[in-house]
Amino acid sequence: MSSTRTASNTTAPTQLLEVNDHSYAYRRFGDGTGLPLLWLQHFTGTLDNWDPAVTDPLASGREVILFDNAGVGRSSGDVPETIAGMARHAMTFLDGLGLKTCDVVGYSLGGMVALQMVQDRPSIFRRMILVGTAPRGGEDIMHLEKPSLAKRIQDPTNRGYDVLKKIFFTSSPASQAAGEAFIRRLSQRQEDRDAPSGPKVASAQTMAFREWETFKGERFAELRAISHPTLIVQGVHDEMIPVSNSYRLSENLANAVLLTYPDAGHGSLFQYPESFTRHAGAFLSSDSESAVF
Amino acid sequence: MSSTRTASNTTAPTQLLEVNDHSYAYRRFGDGTGLPLLWLQHFTGTLDNWDPAVTDPLASGREVILFDNAGVGRSSGDVPETIAGMARHAMTFLDGLGLKTCDVVGYSLGGMVALQMVQDRPSIFRRMILVGTAPRGGEDIMHLEKPSLAKRIQDPTNRGYDVLKKIFFTSSPASQAAGEAFIRRLSQRQEDRDAPSGPKVASAQTMAFREWETFKGERFAELRAISHPTLIVQGVHDEMIPVSNSYRLSENLANAVLLTYPDAGHGSLFQYPESFTRHAGAFLSSDSESAVF
Repeated sequence: MSSTRTASNTTAPTQLLEVNDHSYAYRRFGDGTGLPLLWLQHFTGTLDNWDPAVTDPLASGREVILFDNAGVGRSSGDVPETIAGMARHAMTFLDGLGLKTCDVVGYSLGGMVALQMVQDRPSIFRRMILVGTAPRGGEDIMHLEKPSLAKRIQDPTNRGYDVLKKIFFTSSPASQAAGEAFIRRLSQRQEDRDAPSGPKVASAQTMAFREWETFKGERFAELRAISHPTLIVQGVHDEMIPVSNSYRLSENLANAVLLTYPDAGHGSLFQYPESFTRHAGAFLSSDSESAVF
Repeated sequence: MSSTRTASNTTAPTQLLEVNDHSYAYRRFGDGTGLPLLWLQHFTGTLDNWDPAVTDPLASGREVILFDNAGVGRSSGDVPETIAGMARHAMTFLDGLGLKTCDVVGYSLGGMVALQMVQDRPSIFRRMILVGTAPRGGEDIMHLEKPSLAKRIQDPTNRGYDVLKKIFFTSSPASQAAGEAFIRRLSQRQEDRDAPSGPKVASAQTMAFREWETFKGERFAELRAISHPTLIVQGVHDEMIPVSNSYRLSENLANAVLLTYPDAGHGSLFQYPESFTRHAGAFLSSDSESAVF
């Protein structure tokens, strides 16, 4: 369980953990005295969608653990069609690593998985960072069929990482330039890469989004029972998951600081990696019971 | 125009500036290479409503300038019944000091004045910090007649600063304890104090709130022309000016970072002075064209 030789997602080797007849792909690197930091990934994202500009600075001070959920990248099995199913796999993975408690960055789909995990097993996380995500019963979650998004996603000139520049960033020159830089950073890794996700992954994860939009009883009531220090981050012009979802999270979680970024969409953490890692690092380094840092 | 001898609002002498037949009361203290930082105060607040725990740390690195608008504290004249009138006085005051450009903390009513000033004269501010405030056309601004607020304001056991503990903080033990500490800090200053504001001040400022709630044409359109780096701060449970107003500010200003605090009301900056001054100081110390810090 020691940290790997290199402390960058550009070079860290991919590892496989066998547990409960499943094989989970992950990368673990960095060191320091902080609790390990688990990263839960966005829709169709693999280990190779984690920007080294956000993972690497946070790997100084603690180990970071990037993880492919079941059926994604080189992890075995089928992609669950519910967030609850993904949460179970993530907990099985942490159990397999022997980690009883860690910190977490849950991004988009991964934020929903983190929220489900902390509800199912509160001791699993100490501090949570939720980026561009939504609570159960949130609004307008990942409707890629919306004309504004569908046009960009279906454009044949947008292939591979290029589509991310169009849907994770705003149309401003500054945001598009940040998107270019993001793609360059993702492209630095040359070997030992995950294959991109195909339509089977997208289809199952989309079913999970649709189920997550439903709710029973009082909307957001389950959030009020979560008192873990939480940092919520989102771009104000996120078209994939509107920022209103972060407003509802910060209003209903008992102990959450909200930070929103200007001229930014779904990829706000990749647009402003220096700011994001500075704030995230300060938040994670605190041992206060309060989220305020 | 040099900084005063002591760098605390507990001890800095009150000064008077005579300009255009007006006499403006102010305190100016601190030093450093940063631009001076103007503080624009909340409803009925005087120089003695500025918590030294927020002013003093920021006076290290720059001068801070606390200011009584016309008709408040020891400033002469009548309290304007519009935000525009208050903005004119604040600009006259800065002109009188010979300051062409400064940074600003606009809190509640003071944030509205700052927004009006930057619209009227964009060069007046470099960076803006807007706390617990609302744009023109904002919602539910300072309706002290609401039963939830009126009950606490009219309670005869809440006198002087004590009422602030009930309306600036939430009912949680932690927030009430922070309110106690806030009042203790305000009470440290023994001499050279402003008299508390009376009903005439409250009445004119309330008229200004009612006018500020109105708007013509497209709501919030004027915000999109403001590109100054801006840090917006608010407590998620603010009952005097709901946090939705900060959401609209951060969505419509071109270049604004939003930070919200948990378990906090209108006095969020006084509840978390260490966090507020740490973030505000980092924001003010940046010379980027972006608000992101």
